[in-house]
Amino acid sequence: MDKQEAINEGLKLIDQSKICLLGTNGEDGFPNIKAMMNIKHEGMKKIWLSTNTSSKRVQQLKKDNRASVYYVDESNFKGLMLTGTIQILQDLQSRQMLWDEGSEKYYPLGVEDPDYSVLYFTAHRGNYYHRLKNTTFEIE
Amino acid sequence: MDKQEAINEGLKLIDQSKICLLGTNGEDGFPNIKAMMNIKHEGMKKIWLSTNTSSKRVQQLKKDNRASVYYVDESNFKGLMLTGTIQILQDLQSRQMLWDEGSEKYYPLGVEDPDYSVLYFTAHRGNYYHRLKNTTFEIE
Repeated sequence: MDKQEAINEGLKLIDQSKICLLGTNGEDGFPNIKAMMNIKHEGMKKIWLSTNTSSKRVQQLKKDNRASVYYVDESNFKGLMLTGTIQILQDLQSRQMLWDEGSEKYYPLGVEDPDYSVLYFTAHRGNYYHRLKNTTFEIE
Repeated sequence: MDKQEAINEGLKLIDQSKICLLGTNGEDGFPNIKAMMNIKHEGMKKIWLSTNTSSKRVQQLKKDNRASVYYVDESNFKGLMLTGTIQILQDLQSRQMLWDEGSEKYYPLGVEDPDYSVLYFTAHRGNYYHRLKNTTFEIE
């Protein structure tokens, strides 16, 4: 599989995914994983996730912003891993951009809830897996 | 949710999962994630996975054996993260224990294929997530 095909297939996988897995560096040196809702992306370079400001994930990212975002199709053995860095955003524009009907369940005080943070992930590199093959590519 | 309930629910999640996500520390400092088949476990303490000896994951684990294994039920917003360490095994007994009908697809030379390794994960700690609550526990 050439790189352009891997990127095209990876984008399809992102679009069909309900969730993604966020990988972070735990403070004790162990890698951490957490499922997150797949809400918004622009291509593979820019991904926005929503989380509680008080969460362990945010505390970890403040100390080490290196992360991975993984999408998987378990029925067809497809996987896309993106590695990059995360900025924690709390500006109103970013909050409003990600807000949807179900968000109040997580942030009961609404769009300005101080416990509502946006994670803005910028991907540097990708790896697409399918049919026993890995294809790695830089993300410009 | 008390710890025993979290452990019981976590075990159910493992049993119903077709895959798990393996988190490792990449050599460049970025956390890595890869989907793996959920093959065998004894409780939460001992988990066996199968992988190619030549894989990037094995190379990473030789340098840093700290890992996480994550199980997710995306329909019901449940997640179980286990953190622990991995031993890379190539003894015949371990290879035979994990071998099944589909294994030849990955290890065409059979149960003694040098490209076939068993990852033996020993969990130290767990975190079960459901209904917006995290419950963390030590694994004896």
